[in-house]
Amino acid sequence: MVAPVERQPSETDNARPAVTRRILIADDDGATRSMIVELLRGEGFEVQRRVVPDERERIAAALRELVAGARLVLTTGGTGVAPRDVTPEATLEVLDREAPGIAQALRADSIAKTPHGLLSRGAAGIAGSTLVVNFPGSPGGCRDGFAVLQPALAHALRLLANEATAHEQT
Amino acid sequence: MVAPVERQPSETDNARPAVTRRILIADDDGATRSMIVELLRGEGFEVQRRVVPDERERIAAALRELVAGARLVLTTGGTGVAPRDVTPEATLEVLDREAPGIAQALRADSIAKTPHGLLSRGAAGIAGSTLVVNFPGSPGGCRDGFAVLQPALAHALRLLANEATAHEQT
Amino acid sequence: MVAPVERQPSETDNARPAVTRRILIADDDGATRSMIVELLRGEGFEVQRRVVPDERERIAAALRELVAGARLVLTTGGTGVAPRDVTPEATLEVLDREAPGIAQALRADSIAKTPHGLLSRGAAGIAGSTLVVNFPGSPGGCRDGFAVLQPALAHALRLLANEATAHEQT
Repeated sequence: MVAPVERQPSETDNARPAVTRRILIADDDGATRSMIVELLRGEGFEVQRRVVPDERERIAAALRELVAGARLVLTTGGTGVAPRDVTPEATLEVLDREAPGIAQALRADSIAKTPHGLLSRGAAGIAGSTLVVNFPGSPGGCRDGFAVLQPALAHALRLLANEATAHEQT
Repeated sequence: MVAPVERQPSETDNARPAVTRRILIADDDGATRSMIVELLRGEGFEVQRRVVPDERERIAAALRELVAGARLVLTTGGTGVAPRDVTPEATLEVLDREAPGIAQALRADSIAKTPHGLLSRGAAGIAGSTLVVNFPGSPGGCRDGFAVLQPALAHALRLLANEATAHEQT
Repeated sequence: MVAPVERQPSETDNARPAVTRRILIADDDGATRSMIVELLRGEGFEVQRRVVPDERERIAAALRELVAGARLVLTTGGTGVAPRDVTPEATLEVLDREAPGIAQALRADSIAKTPHGLLSRGAAGIAGSTLVVNFPGSPGGCRDGFAVLQPALAHALRLLANEATAHEQT
């Protein structure tokens, strides 16, 4: 069920030398996967995909591996309340520092749009110098979540990638 | 100070076979207790009440016991900042998976309604396959909190109760 | 880099006998420090300042020391996603009980005002009987954060300071 798709850094990445790769774990919903990959490519990101089953240990293992080589890891799916929804727990296990404002903003947007939004349990934070964000499993939820994250994404990756830059206060 | 009131599952529960009992821990404010019990019965729930003192160990013990036999456990009171307010800590001790979106939605509603709303510290999440939500101790706070939770409640309980159903993404 | 400024309780504190001192940790941005000190003095607070470097252990040590002698500790700065932003982690280490509603309200306000607001990671909670709140490092962020906290501040400090008062539900 694991299907990594490796890609070389593109030329467009040269303009952002500190960020060489971005990686995505997608659940096995094809429409969601296409949605988020398209959104990331639209931002000039190179995308790796990894599909893992709904098992906490395997999600955490995949996250650890991907975090080691990427500046951004987005997950989709597994954020609900069903017994098999354990992506947030696997993510929290891997994070060094939580970014509760990202999770809060995504949930607030979701709650405003759907009565079931408050069941979303997605986490977000930093593992090493990599930003990790849990998105919901539906194409619409991913599109909405990305729209919330996008305005702060470049700033966040710049702060994480370049420890030596002048400190920007947030 | 513990006053359990046991009830048999009602006939109306037959329409929802996977959910046989719902249980409520109420603090010893009679008005709050009446409010929340009435709200739950209005939704067709059978309600058990348990009153426990403001002590973390006793709240956690009561939660563990109630979670073992119910699909939904609501607590009222003990969510403020006073020294005796330890319901969230007892709850977090018992939860397997947090549901931060529920807690966030209840607080956002409370913050919008009262300047003291931001002092509310209630938690929410899943223990085993039981949903646990901390409500505030005032009748008005319970009524408001239930109004926030209600639109997602049946969906959440269905997802938790029936592991075998088709996975619904949240 | 540590620069404590001790002051005696002022006469205005006599009206609030249970709260004898308030203390502030400020980062080394002079404008932010001036802003928050002025806001606290405007509320009748005596203020102590402490400047610590962006190191988790030293921030936690300073927090532990300040919490022992104050009813309120505000921090400024170190709440972003940059590698040196570790104030929330140091704070969580010291807290006995989190107050997620305060952190949520500050972030919601920040998110509404700036696209980078969702990167704010500030925590809040109670250590012993002291309220601790992380504010962002910019003067504007501190002014906005204080405006959010202020309407609930006296109530929170009263609940924390006077264990013997009638329990007020939140």
